[in-house]
Formats: sequence, C-alpha cells, structure tokens
Amino acid sequence: MAQYPQWVYINGEILPAKDAKISVFDRGFLFGDGIYEVMVRMHGKWLFEEAHLERLFAGTAEIDIHFDRDWFRQEVKRYLQFGQLDDANCLLYMQITRGIAPRMHHYPNSNPSFMCYAIEKELPYINELPYSVTLLPDMRWHNCHLKTTAILGNVMAKDHAVKNKHQESILYREEAITEGSHTNVFFVRKGVVYTHPADKHILGGITRKEVIALCKNLDIPCKEVAVRLKDLPKMEEAFLTGTSTQIAAIKQLDRHTFGNNPITQKLQQAFADLCHGR
Amino acid sequence: MAQYPQWVYINGEILPAKDAKISVFDRGFLFGDGIYEVMVRMHGKWLFEEAHLERLFAGTAEIDIHFDRDWFRQEVKRYLQFGQLDDANCLLYMQITRGIAPRMHHYPNSNPSFMCYAIEKELPYINELPYSVTLLPDMRWHNCHLKTTAILGNVMAKDHAVKNKHQESILYREEAITEGSHTNVFFVRKGVVYTHPADKHILGGITRKEVIALCKNLDIPCKEVAVRLKDLPKMEEAFLTGTSTQIAAIKQLDRHTFGNNPITQKLQQAFADLCHGR
Repeated sequence: MAQYPQWVYINGEILPAKDAKISVFDRGFLFGDGIYEVMVRMHGKWLFEEAHLERLFAGTAEIDIHFDRDWFRQEVKRYLQFGQLDDANCLLYMQITRGIAPRMHHYPNSNPSFMCYAIEKELPYINELPYSVTLLPDMRWHNCHLKTTAILGNVMAKDHAVKNKHQESILYREEAITEGSHTNVFFVRKGVVYTHPADKHILGGITRKEVIALCKNLDIPCKEVAVRLKDLPKMEEAFLTGTSTQIAAIKQLDRHTFGNNPITQKLQQAFADLCHGR
Repeated sequence: MAQYPQWVYINGEILPAKDAKISVFDRGFLFGDGIYEVMVRMHGKWLFEEAHLERLFAGTAEIDIHFDRDWFRQEVKRYLQFGQLDDANCLLYMQITRGIAPRMHHYPNSNPSFMCYAIEKELPYINELPYSVTLLPDMRWHNCHLKTTAILGNVMAKDHAVKNKHQESILYREEAITEGSHTNVFFVRKGVVYTHPADKHILGGITRKEVIALCKNLDIPCKEVAVRLKDLPKMEEAFLTGTSTQIAAIKQLDRHTFGNNPITQKLQQAFADLCHGR
C-alpha cells in the first residue's frame, strides 16, 4: 500500500509529511503545470540516475520551466542526507511546477516550485507478480512524452483497471496499442519483441529503453512498432516495464491468457543482473 | 492583470491569500485530479449560477468525486460573507480535488479538498476589445467536456498565443475547429452561426449555451457543426465566448481580417441586456 514519507522537501524546507504544504496558487495545484520524475536506489546506487534527471530536465525545458540544475542536484542530496536516506534502498519522487502566481492561463514570471520525497522501498530481485490487464481507449492528450503532473487521464485509466480487479490498463489509440497508464508495454511473437515507438503518444520509459538495449545484447530482435488490436490474439508473450514495475509478465489480457514466456523471463533475468550489478 | 484575492477558502478555513496552503499530497497537486468552475456576479446576482454549479457537480460526479452539495453551497456563502463580498461584483473561482492521500495513481478513499476565492471584478457592459487569435493543433485529451484542473495543454495553447501577441489560440483537431484555450468559438457565414457541437472535444460553455439560446430568440439560424480549416476563409464573422470573455469579436485570425460583424454585435447587445437584466 502507498504510504507517506517521513520527510518532504518543499521549496528549500524539509518538513514532516503532514506539514508539507504548498500555496493553493501554485500552478501545479491550479493547472497540473509541472513535470515529475521517479527513481529507485538499489545497493546504494540510483538506477539509471542520469537518464532520469536528463528526462526531468528535458521535460521542464520543453514546457519552458527553467532552474539551476546544479542547485537542484544539491537540494536532492541535502534532503536525502537530512532524512538519513543517503544509503537506503528507496524510491525518490521529484516534482517541479511552474510556481506560485495569481491565476491566469499563460505562463507568469514565477519561480518554479520544487518538491521531493523519498520512501524506503525494497524492489524484488525480479517482479514475479502475474499481471492481469484490461484494454481501454487511450483518451489522453497528444504530448504523452512529457512526464507531466496533468495526468487525470492516466489516473482514470489506472482506476478503471483496479475497479475491475486488474493491475493495469493497456491503452490503444486508433487501433494501435500505446502503453499502460503508468507503464510501457511490450509483446513477443515468433521470437520478435514489439513495443510502440517513443513518439509523442507514449512516455519514453527509462526501463523501456534498457529493455530495448538488453534485447540487442541478447540478440533478440526488437521492433519499435505498435501492435494493432487485431493482432493481439497472435501475441505469445506480453510484459510491462516501469521504474517500480521493473519487468512484469502479463498473464491475462481481458479474456486472453498468455502461457510460457521464455523471452520475458530471459529479459527479467538480464534486467535483474543489470540492476544488481552482476 | 491577474491578482491575488484578499481571502481564500481552503478546506473549511478562510485565510489571507499568502497563508492559503494545501498538502503537497493533495491529488490536485500530484495529478491534476480535480474539477473547477468560475462564475461572475453582476448587479448583486450570479450569472447563470445554477448552470455553473450543475456543471461542477456533474464533472466531479463523472470522475467519481463525491461531496454534499448543500454543504458546498453553504461554505461558498460563508466565505463570501466573511470576505464581505456577498454583494460585490466579482469573479468566483471554485476547485474540488480528490483530496489528500499517499501518492498512487488509482483513486484512494480520500475526502475531497475544496478551495474557492473571489476577486472583485467589474465586467464591461459589452466586451469591445478586438481579439487577435492564432490557429494551433488541438493536442489536448479526449475528455475536454470535463472542466478539469489537468489543463497543461490549455495552458500551453494560451501561452503560445500570448507569446505571439495574440489574445487566444483557436484549436483544431483533424481539420475541425474545436474551441479556444479557455473560450468557445463561433463563426458566421451567410447569416448562419456555427459552433462545434458540445461533445467530448470541447467544454460545454455556459455562455456558449446562452448564445445558442439567444440565436433562437433572435431568429438567427445556429448550427452546432464544426467549421473545417478549409472553410475558414469563407467565414464572415467570428467571436469567442466565455464567462469572463463574455462575447468577444475576433478581428484577426492569423492573416485573415474580419470586417463588419452585424450578427456578433446583435448577439453582444442581446447578451448584455440579458446580463444586465433589461
């Protein structure tokens, strides 16, 4: 179950979670005008740290939110030291919003707000949970490559899954499978791995990118080509990827059951080796 | 220019704007998981009050946020009395978010957060400003009928307009003009008024609905049919509608200049009469 952290960093202050508050005029609260990032630490080392930070920096720059990146790194470090989390295995959530200003749609000259918190978290060596997922039309906007906080569409899709006893919703746009509500999705057929290209209709996941690289290392052909709805019954394996999901095998997609998944298992093992530094 | 109100209502408390804060774990801040509404008062009377409240209640219910509507009305009243704004001409902003909970995508069992504030505001009898607007692809999601706070897409579209010295962006999706970033848009050709149907690709504006009703009263044919990009050069008049925009004539759409606008003026006059109770 989700839990509150002990300490929260908010605009220079480090406070107990219950006291961590932001102005109601922060544009994160009024408009979803911000970008977030999540990363995990294992064995005292952040996984793919630079890739996560670069995505955060690229996303904020794209929506014209600017801040000193060295200052940002220092503040994260200071927060982790304060909370005595600088060695723990944990999940770190970071959010930059456009800041506090009287409400108007266009961008004001505001100082960005920065919030972060970490929760101790031990990810499994391999995510062995068998996932059940359900198909849902992708109603989100057309800039899904941005990891923005304006994600009511993702929230609704995830809630739809949970209400119907699934772990995740798999979204499709005009017959093409895009991704999950907070995961990327892959399929396997005849030894070939398929996933939606990293365009504006999906989030370019860090784990997704690592999986594509692992396929190359393992001589598994991988095509960044979207799977069409009509081709789903032909798929032999399916899996989700994400920072805290890692690589999760899909066992059930609505009424379709997936059987043996040798390629998914191979990738799970290779990813575990990568994360655990073997 | 946008301004802060003197007092803000937030979850039962009425505080000076600078002290009005919300937990960083409010899902409005983390996900844009909320619905908002804006209404104005003229001559001591809220314009189309029930229509605005009904839209707010319908939107929250649709995304599964539930609260006592009588309590809500009472709290708004209490806020306005406290701020001695219960007679002033003003603009009232109201926002309901899903509330405070540890971060996870699907809906928690949280109590909704309610924030509102009012600013003294005197709308003109008729909005005489000549608007310049620019076309932009509609990148937003496919549930634009919801007046949600997850509106980074609208924010980006409005900012694009302002950066390019326009007042508003006019959005189009697959060749069909949908609406502005925070307004509805109408066109006139050969005595007929056109506007996008109130489906999931636009917000069903209250002023939009009133304009359609005024057309009927004035025997002006009005069709809820989207104007296509290719037909724009044929349009003789164009105007925007919105709660604080009222009815605003468009004088310039990128390189296209609109000339005389007898029907727009007729509707502006009829709308002013309606609002000022003549």
